[in-house]
Amino acid sequence: MSQLAPAGGTAAATDTSADNVGGRGGETLAPRPYHLSDIPGPLGREELAGLDAWWRAANYLAVGQIYLMANPLLRRPLEAEHVKPRLLGHFGTVPGLNLVWAHANRAIRARDLNAVFVAGPGHGGPGPNACGWLEGTCSELYSHISFDGDGMRELFAQFSYPGGVPSHCAPETPGSFHEGGELGYSLLHAFGAALDNPDLTVFCVVGDGEAETGPLAGSWHANKFLNPGRDGAVLPILALNEYKIANPTLLARIPEGELLSLLRGYGYDPVIVAGSDPATVHQAMAAAMDGCLDRIAEFQRAAREGGDTTRPSWPMIVLRTPKGWTCPPMVDGEPVEGTFRAHQVPLPAARTDAGHRAVLEQWLRSYRPEELFDEAGAPVPGLLALSPIGDRRMSANPVSNGGALVRDLKLPDWREYGVEVIAPGATDHEATQVLGGWLRDVTAANPDNFLTLAPDELASNRLQDILTVTGRNWQAEIGEYDVKLDRTGRVIEVLSEHMCQGLLEGYLLTGRHGVFTCYEAFIHIVDAMFNQHAKWLDASSAVAWRRPIPSLNYLLSSHVWRQDHNGFTHQDPGFLDVVLNKSPEIVRVYLPPDANTLLSTYDHCLRSRHYVNVVVAGKQPQADWLSVPDAIAHCTRGIGIWEWAGHNDEVGTSPDVVLACAGDVPTLETLAAAAILRERLPQLRIRVVNVVDLMRLQPSDQHPHGLPDSEFDTLFTADRPVIFAFHGYPWLIHRLAYRRTNHDGMHVRGYKEKGTTTTPFDMVMLNDLDRYHLVMDVIDRVPGLGERAAGLRQDMSDARAAARAWTREHGQDIPEVAEWRWPYSRA
Amino acid sequence: MSQLAPAGGTAAATDTSADNVGGRGGETLAPRPYHLSDIPGPLGREELAGLDAWWRAANYLAVGQIYLMANPLLRRPLEAEHVKPRLLGHFGTVPGLNLVWAHANRAIRARDLNAVFVAGPGHGGPGPNACGWLEGTCSELYSHISFDGDGMRELFAQFSYPGGVPSHCAPETPGSFHEGGELGYSLLHAFGAALDNPDLTVFCVVGDGEAETGPLAGSWHANKFLNPGRDGAVLPILALNEYKIANPTLLARIPEGELLSLLRGYGYDPVIVAGSDPATVHQAMAAAMDGCLDRIAEFQRAAREGGDTTRPSWPMIVLRTPKGWTCPPMVDGEPVEGTFRAHQVPLPAARTDAGHRAVLEQWLRSYRPEELFDEAGAPVPGLLALSPIGDRRMSANPVSNGGALVRDLKLPDWREYGVEVIAPGATDHEATQVLGGWLRDVTAANPDNFLTLAPDELASNRLQDILTVTGRNWQAEIGEYDVKLDRTGRVIEVLSEHMCQGLLEGYLLTGRHGVFTCYEAFIHIVDAMFNQHAKWLDASSAVAWRRPIPSLNYLLSSHVWRQDHNGFTHQDPGFLDVVLNKSPEIVRVYLPPDANTLLSTYDHCLRSRHYVNVVVAGKQPQADWLSVPDAIAHCTRGIGIWEWAGHNDEVGTSPDVVLACAGDVPTLETLAAAAILRERLPQLRIRVVNVVDLMRLQPSDQHPHGLPDSEFDTLFTADRPVIFAFHGYPWLIHRLAYRRTNHDGMHVRGYKEKGTTTTPFDMVMLNDLDRYHLVMDVIDRVPGLGERAAGLRQDMSDARAAARAWTREHGQDIPEVAEWRWPYSRA
Repeated sequence: MSQLAPAGGTAAATDTSADNVGGRGGETLAPRPYHLSDIPGPLGREELAGLDAWWRAANYLAVGQIYLMANPLLRRPLEAEHVKPRLLGHFGTVPGLNLVWAHANRAIRARDLNAVFVAGPGHGGPGPNACGWLEGTCSELYSHISFDGDGMRELFAQFSYPGGVPSHCAPETPGSFHEGGELGYSLLHAFGAALDNPDLTVFCVVGDGEAETGPLAGSWHANKFLNPGRDGAVLPILALNEYKIANPTLLARIPEGELLSLLRGYGYDPVIVAGSDPATVHQAMAAAMDGCLDRIAEFQRAAREGGDTTRPSWPMIVLRTPKGWTCPPMVDGEPVEGTFRAHQVPLPAARTDAGHRAVLEQWLRSYRPEELFDEAGAPVPGLLALSPIGDRRMSANPVSNGGALVRDLKLPDWREYGVEVIAPGATDHEATQVLGGWLRDVTAANPDNFLTLAPDELASNRLQDILTVTGRNWQAEIGEYDVKLDRTGRVIEVLSEHMCQGLLEGYLLTGRHGVFTCYEAFIHIVDAMFNQHAKWLDASSAVAWRRPIPSLNYLLSSHVWRQDHNGFTHQDPGFLDVVLNKSPEIVRVYLPPDANTLLSTYDHCLRSRHYVNVVVAGKQPQADWLSVPDAIAHCTRGIGIWEWAGHNDEVGTSPDVVLACAGDVPTLETLAAAAILRERLPQLRIRVVNVVDLMRLQPSDQHPHGLPDSEFDTLFTADRPVIFAFHGYPWLIHRLAYRRTNHDGMHVRGYKEKGTTTTPFDMVMLNDLDRYHLVMDVIDRVPGLGERAAGLRQDMSDARAAARAWTREHGQDIPEVAEWRWPYSRA
Repeated sequence: MSQLAPAGGTAAATDTSADNVGGRGGETLAPRPYHLSDIPGPLGREELAGLDAWWRAANYLAVGQIYLMANPLLRRPLEAEHVKPRLLGHFGTVPGLNLVWAHANRAIRARDLNAVFVAGPGHGGPGPNACGWLEGTCSELYSHISFDGDGMRELFAQFSYPGGVPSHCAPETPGSFHEGGELGYSLLHAFGAALDNPDLTVFCVVGDGEAETGPLAGSWHANKFLNPGRDGAVLPILALNEYKIANPTLLARIPEGELLSLLRGYGYDPVIVAGSDPATVHQAMAAAMDGCLDRIAEFQRAAREGGDTTRPSWPMIVLRTPKGWTCPPMVDGEPVEGTFRAHQVPLPAARTDAGHRAVLEQWLRSYRPEELFDEAGAPVPGLLALSPIGDRRMSANPVSNGGALVRDLKLPDWREYGVEVIAPGATDHEATQVLGGWLRDVTAANPDNFLTLAPDELASNRLQDILTVTGRNWQAEIGEYDVKLDRTGRVIEVLSEHMCQGLLEGYLLTGRHGVFTCYEAFIHIVDAMFNQHAKWLDASSAVAWRRPIPSLNYLLSSHVWRQDHNGFTHQDPGFLDVVLNKSPEIVRVYLPPDANTLLSTYDHCLRSRHYVNVVVAGKQPQADWLSVPDAIAHCTRGIGIWEWAGHNDEVGTSPDVVLACAGDVPTLETLAAAAILRERLPQLRIRVVNVVDLMRLQPSDQHPHGLPDSEFDTLFTADRPVIFAFHGYPWLIHRLAYRRTNHDGMHVRGYKEKGTTTTPFDMVMLNDLDRYHLVMDVIDRVPGLGERAAGLRQDMSDARAAARAWTREHGQDIPEVAEWRWPYSRA
């Protein structure tokens, strides 16, 4: 397999003797300025020259960002003090990104495309930054980065500098809705953006490094969910520059036939653009892009006008150009352009080593800046004319600032979907099933603005009612026995949490709404994606021109406490711990105890902006505790005393013990414990506190939802024992509440890792969260109760043993548990 | 696209009128017993009959597990009380698994293969359980599951039953080293097992559901790391039964040509085995397996005898058979066999509904158990003869109980790799680079037993010295400018954290050793895989016949406190929070503060068994604090007073304040703060406590490494202020220490999410972990110090502002920070 030659032809020695300066060994060669050869293709001589000039300008601006803090236009000879003291950033992938951007601009102007750009390759920031400045958008968004030499210097200075912008695309990057820090999600964001955006074209550059990640490898199949009749188009460009940080990429080291077979197997029709001679690549790229966009337009026309429902073999481009294309071919005797050494900073000693610096200057001048920028430092008119206008600029397309385009959801009144609660615990409902009825109508009322995603768990999580008004989006074949598949479905099911998360992120980032429902344990699969999305939300809050986007809403069910046959592998409530590490401005966690509180919570979530809302709720039949009005009141407070469950307890009185609970199963066990205590120890004054909004437990200076200490003390008392039954790992409660007055009085029962196959109640007992343990806790912790309640304690111990033995023998809960009902009336 | 017909030919009504019993609508049909048609193929009539009988026996035993708690051999008519009260488990994928197992057995016997089985499809547990019993292994491992009717009843009763075994493969499953709970890792485990196991064949069944996951989609490329000369073989069998829980699978709904193109693009040579007629499929499967194994043998011979280094186009099988093959074709009027409805329990009402139960009995009898089991209930001799013998049984292969095969690593004496420490902080080293020198020699000394894996970050994390004794394993093409690639390399680099983790897991689970080095922030990508592996270790500890396996060792670098240009996206120390949620018997977290403590820690990790060891260490030049002997003493304790850093402080004396630290950057800042305090407030008695082993902070009843309260109090005092500088999110320290006497006195500084691009010290300051803040904390918290130290407080505030301004202006640390050295001698 041969490697690509440098842009300037064979590497050639430069006039400057750059070798052996500063003790470094071997030759350092500047790139030779190239001239555009006369290659046939769709580009006429003038158009070719213009395109190439735009590309050179973007490349010049990218190199400037990595190296320069002054003298941006090289109007003076380059001196050491013009070079940044620490050289950070990455050049390797940038020329490829700039090439795609330049050619996309040609297509946008020719076809009046509504297009956005996704930069998948790692650390490509200098590219889109440069293109955004060239298009004038940077200067519109950031007044200090003016559209002249001064602004260019600011553009350069901020890059990879304290308080500036990172070396990858970020919320600060004009036109980006894709965080470039963690790799693998570019295609998912691109496809998510294209859904329900019929006239949008997403140019998505996929790095051959990120292509090795699992999420990216799986996400090529997102084309099975893109309907040419309803959705926009994604044009993937696989940037095959052959190298990662220190290694070649897998896809660059398999035979080309194998690569093409792979991409065809993913359902694409790839065209290869390869080379290192700029004119050759420009002509091939222009032809490829024209061909691809023509085919996309044809597919869309066939679907929209002809009613064709076949899944298209979507076009894509494989762009094989040298890593660090146009950079120095040789540094200190080692080949750089076209190798992994071009990944980051090709001339690492440019400030301290005169030789490196001289080559840097030659490199910069090889782009012929004097042709590109006018006296003031603005792009020359010929360049300006090549950028699209206004919103058509990819750096300014409002789709990439999705918050600017948000339409509120039309939400049916959730109260009409609530269950009737005659008395607390008198009836049972599957909470998520009740929610599903409301989500069904949310789906119907917002036919192009709302999606539900699930990894083949929609029905398992009891949201199947949605499927009465829509099907599952499916553009692949449909088998004889397949049900509820639909070319225009509003549900996406694919057995990949990464795809669900990534498609939804792309959809939200471009201003639409949605829900991701998942088994609780397996949401950890997307921990890292959640982290990055939360960071995007946090960082974008500080970017003045970014508008808040719809919240990312999780509905986690099939949760830790109900794993009838799946056992230990399906038990993990730790996503909450991951979530609560992120910025308190962004994250929200809700544990509604029943159907009506779940409805109320979700209505709130779908109205919210710029949060990550995590809602955990069971899918099994569980007691209904609160009527609709009570649910409203309780969810509004987020935490509160359930007076009817204790001794007509009111704020101001002082109970003997507080039974606190968060989560549906913990609430059930707590109420069962309360009932036992009320019956057996009627003189003991108990208070029941239920927590829906977990953030209420944090101090008010730590989280916007945090309860002030005085209110917290009012609920939990300053000194009475608190027995807290918690859905998740118990130490999370301690972590949230360790500063509270009565923290030392809090005893938390929650989930701990104990691997075995269980029934529901067996599971609760294994983790000592059961009613019997809660009662025993009270006896052990209320001062002076021990002796008085010794008989009850023994009864609890016996009852627990009997319940355990029953589950082991009968494979199901003992009737006294299974059939238990709250025995008191509301009054 | 046509769907497959049921096993018994066209669905036909049974004799039993099963419809409309129990209020259910529609017909319920039993499968028709099938007869083997006379299909040409490699199997003679007798061999075909035998294979089919083995398969029927396995299927019978699988159905029995899902439904029966008594009458396992159907020697009596089936009554309600023979059926489990709750029907749990999954049948859909089982017949395919059993088919592969039966055919693999034929190949094992014919070729004397050393083979193991990986069941990728979800919830396939009944299959391998059945095969393990049929081969006699279950009875050898579990005395109560005897090799007769009684044992069969026990086998059935334990399945998906409280205290029994889960519905997927688990540590309890004979012959499994692959946890079947979370999907997507089967191929990675298979390839990891095959590495350095030259005579091993791994039959790896990949579910078409799990094939949608990102990790699985990426992991087909693991074949680029399998050397036919050195490693064993993986035979992937893609089980294309077309359905997940409620949906068809993507790979079953693309044209066959596209699927084949995809698999060829992944580098395989697929052969299709399709059908629903058992004889047809048996013949095709036998032919396919013979062909695949012949080709594998040829590739291995060519590499081993002929020195052929070409990457083979490894064979694989696409097995297209009906979901729930051989189960009832119709239940309550809905088609079941060959549809998603066969995923779980095809006859959900078999206990309560006589019609369902009658069909269940017919279904069971359709396997003709009377031909399969003798009077006592053991498999008939003809079946026994078809199972391999002893260790050749896949259910008993010691490779699947890797702990039984572990060879200790040959570890060079790490003390000889330690750095010289004349005085604390007098010299700097890159800690991971020092470790790399030792790992280099570990690699050389264990040439077939130790691997290092990294997502293209080995050199970035400064472990490049390993590459002086080996290359990176690379079976793909090698380009002109590629370096350090090697067909026999002991390092695997691929830009997929999932692949690194999964291959290493497979390698460890089969008894070998390794290290996974990763950027700290991105290790969250494998949170879920870590969770499942930790659960496997925990659950397998309780399985008597499982032996402890080598620990999973992480080396996390490029950590949160040193992100010079990457910024916010690369800052996340939260993996520690995820890790500490798992069983304390399994997880270990170490934060060595310098090079020698890192060496000592890692030596300990590589000697340990059955843990997950997480080690976080910096790659940047940092002060050396402890000599080799001091590092040994400190790491042995895991936590301790650094007497030289405080006021000749000793246990028993009582300082005015404790400065605690965990992590390299926090330690540096703490010592800098200590030096300022010693100079400016010489009368203040300070104590410096450093924590290497984070688990020491937990109570001794919570973690085996936990310090008893008395020792904790001795270190941290009962009542003096503790200023704790921590590497991670600060609340983790509170979570670990909230029960300690002096917890209320602990003030923790750590990382909080604040997104911006930074330099190293700017980052530390943004998070208020800097020396200036630590000094101010002391002033604010030591009683009575405030007024005396008002001047120092102001100085700190000014110095901090100046340092911040410097980083913003100069892009690097202020010299007083960058050049700071510990100013005191050791004595």
